Amino acid sequence: MGIITIGREFGSGGRELGKRLADELGYAYYDKEIVAQIAKNSELDENYVEYALDGGMFRNFPIHFGRTFSYSPTLMANETKLLADQNKLMREIADKGNCIIIGRAADVILRDYTAFNLFVYADMDSKVKRCKEKGGEHEKLTDKELIRKIKKIDADRKRYHGLISEIPWGDKRGYHLCVNTSGREIKTIVPLVAAYYNLWKEEQK
Amino acid sequence: MGIITIGREFGSGGRELGKRLADELGYAYYDKEIVAQIAKNSELDENYVEYALDGGMFRNFPIHFGRTFSYSPTLMANETKLLADQNKLMREIADKGNCIIIGRAADVILRDYTAFNLFVYADMDSKVKRCKEKGGEHEKLTDKELIRKIKKIDADRKRYHGLISEIPWGDKRGYHLCVNTSGREIKTIVPLVAAYYNLWKEEQK
Repeated sequence: MGIITIGREFGSGGRELGKRLADELGYAYYDKEIVAQIAKNSELDENYVEYALDGGMFRNFPIHFGRTFSYSPTLMANETKLLADQNKLMREIADKGNCIIIGRAADVILRDYTAFNLFVYADMDSKVKRCKEKGGEHEKLTDKELIRKIKKIDADRKRYHGLISEIPWGDKRGYHLCVNTSGREIKTIVPLVAAYYNLWKEEQK
Repeated sequence: MGIITIGREFGSGGRELGKRLADELGYAYYDKEIVAQIAKNSELDENYVEYALDGGMFRNFPIHFGRTFSYSPTLMANETKLLADQNKLMREIADKGNCIIIGRAADVILRDYTAFNLFVYADMDSKVKRCKEKGGEHEKLTDKELIRKIKKIDADRKRYHGLISEIPWGDKRGYHLCVNTSGREIKTIVPLVAAYYNLWKEEQK
């Protein structure tokens, strides 16, 4: 039974790597699937659930709680519930085994499991290039806007991860392997990451 | 023509990994060999050269230079000369190609070359265990003393690296791949790192 968590910088190709790795290993792949499931269970709008779970709810979090704290308690309770649901769902997924979970601080949430934690990163030029190649809404942004977006999304991921873990998001100590995808073809890297993971898995026995 | 630089935490097995990788790839391997060559060229004692080049000369470096700075100017000139010699020698080695250079901030010194930069790290327990297994002087140290030594050596490496590079020593952004060796057998990792490197090399063409 195997579990892989993938942390990734926005635009580094971590999601593509995860998907291809899941195909290569015959593992189940979870990313937006988790959001969809929670939206369904909670009967909330999927876009709202995604926003909340992708760190939206922590975007305005003050570092120190105090009397100036103005975030609505009801909203907070809702979103905390969503997070609890997400964590429960991730553990259910992990219990079934042979899966890859992208993001969502799965490396921290599943720390009691024997999971292989991978981090995927790249330099800013590569991330901008990759975002543009993917097209969609990113094509309309200038490089400057795209860089701002990349930094913003990663800052949210870091903030959320930091709330539940002593080891910061992206700090290599929290991962078994850190792969720099700058200028690389994700497709070609996948078999080697799969082999590395299989070897690691073998050594856990 | 290929060049690999390996940065490594003390006790992480980076040296063993480098040696085995050199064997696997048929590359020349440089570590203490560089010290020996410089000692020979400069007619200085090898132990002194090693001490100086391993960051000894920066151990008492004040962060801000000022009137309280008391390090001997002559000694400093000697040691700066040694560093310049080391950098020149590393470039000569790189020019010949197909080599692996351990430590010595080779990732920074050789940044104009197309070198593959690997970083090897592990958690403290694994590093202590690995040091003890190697035996020698480490067997006589208590765990506490060994941890202090490991931290001290890595702090020196970080300090020296920081003097010549904007990206800190051990920061994943400065490397193509970061391998966590906690609880791992170095021997079994080597073929996969070699394959990953060969793939990267192929993509540079």
